[in-house]
Amino acid sequence: MEKTSTGAFPSTMNSSEKQETVCIFGTGDFGRSLALRMLQCDYSIVFGSRNPQKSSLLPNGAAVLSYLEAAQKSDIIILAVHREHYDFLKELTEVLKGKILVDISNNLKIDQYLESNAEYLAQLLPGAHVVKAFNTISAWALQSGALDANRQVFVCGNDSKAKQRVMDVVRTLGLTPLDQGSLLAAKEIENYPLQLFPMWKLPFYLSAILCVFFFCYCVIRDVLYPYANGNQDSTFRLAISIPNRIFPIAALTLLALVYLPGVIAAILQLYRGTKYRRFPDWLDQWMLCRKQLGLVALGFAFLHVLYTLVIPIRYYVRWTLKNRTITQALAKTDDPFSTTTAWLNDSYIALGILGFFLFVLLGITSLPSVSNMVNWREFRFVQPTPWCTAGRNSSVLRVLDGIFLLPT
Amino acid sequence: MEKTSTGAFPSTMNSSEKQETVCIFGTGDFGRSLALRMLQCDYSIVFGSRNPQKSSLLPNGAAVLSYLEAAQKSDIIILAVHREHYDFLKELTEVLKGKILVDISNNLKIDQYLESNAEYLAQLLPGAHVVKAFNTISAWALQSGALDANRQVFVCGNDSKAKQRVMDVVRTLGLTPLDQGSLLAAKEIENYPLQLFPMWKLPFYLSAILCVFFFCYCVIRDVLYPYANGNQDSTFRLAISIPNRIFPIAALTLLALVYLPGVIAAILQLYRGTKYRRFPDWLDQWMLCRKQLGLVALGFAFLHVLYTLVIPIRYYVRWTLKNRTITQALAKTDDPFSTTTAWLNDSYIALGILGFFLFVLLGITSLPSVSNMVNWREFRFVQPTPWCTAGRNSSVLRVLDGIFLLPT
Amino acid sequence: MEKTSTGAFPSTMNSSEKQETVCIFGTGDFGRSLALRMLQCDYSIVFGSRNPQKSSLLPNGAAVLSYLEAAQKSDIIILAVHREHYDFLKELTEVLKGKILVDISNNLKIDQYLESNAEYLAQLLPGAHVVKAFNTISAWALQSGALDANRQVFVCGNDSKAKQRVMDVVRTLGLTPLDQGSLLAAKEIENYPLQLFPMWKLPFYLSAILCVFFFCYCVIRDVLYPYANGNQDSTFRLAISIPNRIFPIAALTLLALVYLPGVIAAILQLYRGTKYRRFPDWLDQWMLCRKQLGLVALGFAFLHVLYTLVIPIRYYVRWTLKNRTITQALAKTDDPFSTTTAWLNDSYIALGILGFFLFVLLGITSLPSVSNMVNWREFRFVQPTPWCTAGRNSSVLRVLDGIFLLPT
Repeated sequence: MEKTSTGAFPSTMNSSEKQETVCIFGTGDFGRSLALRMLQCDYSIVFGSRNPQKSSLLPNGAAVLSYLEAAQKSDIIILAVHREHYDFLKELTEVLKGKILVDISNNLKIDQYLESNAEYLAQLLPGAHVVKAFNTISAWALQSGALDANRQVFVCGNDSKAKQRVMDVVRTLGLTPLDQGSLLAAKEIENYPLQLFPMWKLPFYLSAILCVFFFCYCVIRDVLYPYANGNQDSTFRLAISIPNRIFPIAALTLLALVYLPGVIAAILQLYRGTKYRRFPDWLDQWMLCRKQLGLVALGFAFLHVLYTLVIPIRYYVRWTLKNRTITQALAKTDDPFSTTTAWLNDSYIALGILGFFLFVLLGITSLPSVSNMVNWREFRFVQPTPWCTAGRNSSVLRVLDGIFLLPT
Repeated sequence: MEKTSTGAFPSTMNSSEKQETVCIFGTGDFGRSLALRMLQCDYSIVFGSRNPQKSSLLPNGAAVLSYLEAAQKSDIIILAVHREHYDFLKELTEVLKGKILVDISNNLKIDQYLESNAEYLAQLLPGAHVVKAFNTISAWALQSGALDANRQVFVCGNDSKAKQRVMDVVRTLGLTPLDQGSLLAAKEIENYPLQLFPMWKLPFYLSAILCVFFFCYCVIRDVLYPYANGNQDSTFRLAISIPNRIFPIAALTLLALVYLPGVIAAILQLYRGTKYRRFPDWLDQWMLCRKQLGLVALGFAFLHVLYTLVIPIRYYVRWTLKNRTITQALAKTDDPFSTTTAWLNDSYIALGILGFFLFVLLGITSLPSVSNMVNWREFRFVQPTPWCTAGRNSSVLRVLDGIFLLPT
Repeated sequence: MEKTSTGAFPSTMNSSEKQETVCIFGTGDFGRSLALRMLQCDYSIVFGSRNPQKSSLLPNGAAVLSYLEAAQKSDIIILAVHREHYDFLKELTEVLKGKILVDISNNLKIDQYLESNAEYLAQLLPGAHVVKAFNTISAWALQSGALDANRQVFVCGNDSKAKQRVMDVVRTLGLTPLDQGSLLAAKEIENYPLQLFPMWKLPFYLSAILCVFFFCYCVIRDVLYPYANGNQDSTFRLAISIPNRIFPIAALTLLALVYLPGVIAAILQLYRGTKYRRFPDWLDQWMLCRKQLGLVALGFAFLHVLYTLVIPIRYYVRWTLKNRTITQALAKTDDPFSTTTAWLNDSYIALGILGFFLFVLLGITSLPSVSNMVNWREFRFVQPTPWCTAGRNSSVLRVLDGIFLLPT
């Protein structure tokens, strides 16, 4: 249905029935955006505010009351205030008893507090049903209803009926609720929008280092040396020739780094004699970003293919070919055809193409929707696995377990 | 599990247990297909028909009774008749009380009626639990059990127990139920199968206009003018040279059109001084199809890359090169190597490749399964965003809000 | 959330609250891995064992008791023993009454037993709530928490509350539960991890046969014949020239085989006069693997494109071009430019590119996440459909139904 819900207003707005009343505490940017969207979906909105008189800029159709009055009007109260201001809720303990309190707060840093905001709230108000939701959605996405934002709303909470009602609200707003279980998941949900490609950092830095190193090496070898030696200007090599030398090296090195941690882990397991102990942190981190390493390597391989296919279009290559032909024509000589060179050159190119083809296949199977279609056995068939990771059927390790461990 | 359920008959048919009885009103094409599939999954089927004696072509094993008798046999009644014929149900009000009525109807046009068929049905029979389902599935997909059809069944209804039971039936048939909330969603679900790429229309027409315009321009300039001037036949340029001139222009123009509406929207928000008012319809439409515009642009870029890589294989290019070489060889002259040209040519090509690479990355992140893995912050990092859309953290607009609006 | 749960330990472990106690019967590899993971997520674990004294290698923190004692400690009992040993459970009938029994067993062969292990268990212990789960997860994935494994856990069971509790456990472990309905689905879930690309076998064998046949043909024609005739060594053609002749043939043949079964099915339906009878098995199998056939064909087409683009880089091609140019330069002749050849060559290449482009589009729409976004009408618009499959609206067949069948 995602496509049809792309419109800023879901079609439910055509319905004349009025949905229930929802109360929003806090009149900040996100509270107002949420209210606007809910009004469009025929909810009645009541804002709760410290100074109901002073609140401005609120969407038409929403009432503004004091916290106490607003909370009495509705079963569902959305808390659009920062964690630091939660204290005022203590005074409302009575009126909030048994009501659904939706915590939508985010922090500024990952793991900023010991417990998640939602769990803190649940401790503060043991009588209310706290549900975590909406924190991964942006205010802008709510207003514009644009497709290009992530429409998934992670929901968690200890009371399953309260959770269900919040998920119904999420669905009515044209978003997709995802049940994440109990409030224990709140910490993870609060950290989620703060991450910026955590698994991509190591691969990115590694490839940056590799590229810089080999770039310097190639510049010295192909540009500076000829200039120093023969005063020859080959700076134009910086654009294509040198990158096309760096890319395959980077791709192959990164690909090797995908497989290496598995081997190290296997050796470590054999050395330790058990697989029930955790790997050291650096190895763990390394193993977790193998997929990202592989995808960066695929990117380099893709660039290498394009840079290679472009060779015969280059002015430099065309000129060299023409020049050599003219020289030979004028000298009335022609070098004979060498079958060996043809063999070497052709098999070199053919192997490169086949390698790239397999690499692309690997990349496609790592797309989330494809790998979800594939079971464990099939996944192992396609994706690289060092022998140590055969899991449930790893007879090798089982034998080794026997050898090393049964005496213990 | 999707893969294993590709067989026409789910493995549950091996089970000897009989599932419950389901009643189907209407013996049309879809009713029969659904019955066949349900029989294969061990359901007992009872058809309800106006003329039980006259009904033919029904699957073996299904009984045909009058509406009244059939409705008494089962808790779940699937309504496979058109909305225009719903009136006969009024006579069955008593017997349908408390039963689950599954509306599977589709309309011929989008928004054909004011309220959805399912809501109309719920008004007609307030005592029955109306559930909307199955309307997005084709009769053919039910019969052949083929993988290449969409297996998702959107389900909505006001009674959650009734909805749950229908979702169980859907699952037993080897299809995937998707809970879409209350009956308010029925209108959207009924419109869904009638759409034909609604968001792709604008990009498609735009690119068609662009292509036709530049094609005419290029034909006049590269084919007609040389012919009129020098009687030179260059019609063969129509196949590759001219398309390869049109494609990059179309790609770049469409890419520009992806970013333009964001800028216009930003200016409009600044001019209006608020972001809580809707954009005009044309701008809204434009912003909603930005992703599709971008993908069409990527298609043109992909074609441009292939048409460019193919250049040195072309007979025309080979002949021209050879001819020039021979001419120079015979004249015993050779133009010297120009470092500037090499620089220009190489950097031109290299930038093109890098641009295409980034474009492909953008395209991959717009795959639904990939963009679902990415949070809002990461999405903004990868995908194009004009500054005005920074949403929750848009301090610029917040400041402007303050300047323009607080006095109000 | 998948990304954040990549860590070996979900963040819930930071919480100080203790989760409930879970009992695991069986101290094998998978039981221990599951226990380790659950301990990390703050569950209390009690192992049930025949010889509690003799059990070794168990994770720290888990108690080992006799079956009877262990079962009394917990509501949820995970059964990590083989089906052959289920008999001992009969003695525990009393204590297991009303408890949740999670069957995680797998078989060695597809359809090894008549009924699934879970259904067999449910018959053995009618008082317990049997839930099937975890069998598609590998022990290794549980231990390492690695991203590269499939995190989906298929869950099915007849008691919805029991199922819900098991799904909560699954979610707490950082995995994704997928509700598959009642225990009837257990057979399918047990077969799932044993499959190895069942739908890919036919396409794979077909393409292997095609490739071998055309390879032999081309070797005889392009390598052996020239050698026998003129003692000319053209073995270097084996690397690129011959594969590049095989690939397009294989791609086109396989593509034809995608469309052929639809036509045969249509003829068969017309001949039989009904579409409510099953197709013969071979046709059914063939139709079910059409998507895979198409993807293999796309793979060949992709290889053909790369092998073709690489032509001007090849030594053989460069040498031939140079040689011909020099010969003509020395003979002071030059063949004139032929517009016809240019036309033929250019349109040949252009059509190839456009065909490949459409093929790639087809491939992209067959990605699961993309095809889920598309409704039936749109799918039919993009993907190849013989006219017989138009389904619900197939007026042709409906007319034919009338002609052939109404008399019956």
